Amino acid sequence: MPQKIGFVGLGIMGRPMAKNLMDAGYELTLHNRTREKAETLAAEGAAGVADSPRKVAERCSIVITMLPGPPDVEAVVAGKDGLLAGARENSLIVDMSTSSPALAKDLARHARERGIGMLDAPVSGGDAGAIEGTLSIMAGGSEEDFERARPLFEVMGETVTHVGPPGTGQVVKAANQVVVALAIEAVSEALALGSKAGVDPEVILDSLSGGLAANRVMEVKRRNFLERDFEPGGKLEFHRKDLVIALAAAREYGVALPGAAMVDQMFGALETKGRGSWDHSSLLTLIEELSGRKDEEDA
Amino acid sequence: MPQKIGFVGLGIMGRPMAKNLMDAGYELTLHNRTREKAETLAAEGAAGVADSPRKVAERCSIVITMLPGPPDVEAVVAGKDGLLAGARENSLIVDMSTSSPALAKDLARHARERGIGMLDAPVSGGDAGAIEGTLSIMAGGSEEDFERARPLFEVMGETVTHVGPPGTGQVVKAANQVVVALAIEAVSEALALGSKAGVDPEVILDSLSGGLAANRVMEVKRRNFLERDFEPGGKLEFHRKDLVIALAAAREYGVALPGAAMVDQMFGALETKGRGSWDHSSLLTLIEELSGRKDEEDA
Repeated sequence: MPQKIGFVGLGIMGRPMAKNLMDAGYELTLHNRTREKAETLAAEGAAGVADSPRKVAERCSIVITMLPGPPDVEAVVAGKDGLLAGARENSLIVDMSTSSPALAKDLARHARERGIGMLDAPVSGGDAGAIEGTLSIMAGGSEEDFERARPLFEVMGETVTHVGPPGTGQVVKAANQVVVALAIEAVSEALALGSKAGVDPEVILDSLSGGLAANRVMEVKRRNFLERDFEPGGKLEFHRKDLVIALAAAREYGVALPGAAMVDQMFGALETKGRGSWDHSSLLTLIEELSGRKDEEDA
Repeated sequence: MPQKIGFVGLGIMGRPMAKNLMDAGYELTLHNRTREKAETLAAEGAAGVADSPRKVAERCSIVITMLPGPPDVEAVVAGKDGLLAGARENSLIVDMSTSSPALAKDLARHARERGIGMLDAPVSGGDAGAIEGTLSIMAGGSEEDFERARPLFEVMGETVTHVGPPGTGQVVKAANQVVVALAIEAVSEALALGSKAGVDPEVILDSLSGGLAANRVMEVKRRNFLERDFEPGGKLEFHRKDLVIALAAAREYGVALPGAAMVDQMFGALETKGRGSWDHSSLLTLIEELSGRKDEEDA
């Protein structure tokens, strides 16, 4: 356990993930664009702070990154002061950001050329999952690299799956976000139709839960839909970023995703209306505004 | 139990539903457009055959209908030789077809004006559910009429719900079919993206089952998707008829259903390709044909 672990990116997800590793006894070297955040966390446990990703890589045999999106991942991994510039042979980079499959494959190839391992291991489960260490982790990369990272994954997550070669972790995450987006769209349309036709929304959700229409979104977001409480949860603007990645991947691989493209446009409309920081279940509000709500017409 | 029950419409759904009622000891009077089907079933138990819906209504205190769609429902209930022409006061008509909410409301009003009760009580669960008596039944109408029909519903179905006033049974069914359609679209897009990006479809389904993306379609249709076996199951052309009803209801009530409209177009394309009698999970084949399958490109 005296293995030195680096962690780059201490935002809403990265911070609790790094904290869980520290609490499990790992000696961490931290880096964050805003250095203060790294120092605050370092003060909570046996951790050091480094000035750049390169310096993190110089000190550590495994480095985890948790960053906002593909441009950040590319800069932190392959940039001038990035991880690849400092990483020793046989070290391992584990990118847990939600990023582009094509970029993940490219970076893994660059890393391999220098004798460095790389995994793309995005997560689902949100900040609650990050805090509780119950994330779902979908990792793409070699079996050997996956086994090396597995003890760390098991500290941060509950369901840990090796899904295939480099890039496939990001593909599975993109597919996941497409399905969640369309499930939210589906439930929103059902509720909008039901409520304008005079059916109690609870009756809609209860009736649909018994059969082929049943889905997890309907269970997990039930309170959001019924009470119209759109405190996140999962922010719409983050989900949209994931759809942008999915649609770029679709372009890359030559796949048509008409449903995902449609919800992307609708999420965009909601961002324009200033609802980017609402829960993604607030897609219901757009369907209702396209339709007019019954209580407005009755008023 | 010597209550006389009529049953009109002995197709793939109606026949086993009527048979279950006969097996439960009800004395049935049957009518079917093709008289032969009614006679064959009558020969299996204590049942009579009538020449027209009107004659069924003259003999029975409760009449159940199970018909292909709204035009048939309108003709059988309100036509010249229809149920309303023969029904006695205080009798009850239970339409279990999937039909239009607006028509259901209209017919219930006409019936009420003549002192006749009416329920719209569409089902889900397919022919398997009809045979096994495990249908989900969503009934719209008065509480009193619902309680009167409940013993019959409990013979034919497992989950029996009174969802609201006349028309709401059809609204809930329409909402159900919208959600199922978008769930199939979602899983199809996820699988098309995954497989062209080189991820094993089983890995996609397993990974997505653990989180917010989980849905019943992914479980129930797993074998169809993985083995590309599109024997119905639920015929695409029937699901499309339901979407046409949902979209007409959306127009009626002033609701936007962009997702349902999109899948309706895609189901239409599949019908044009001669796949109307395939299982509705064959939506996957359209997404793949829009995208090209990996094995085709590799060939």
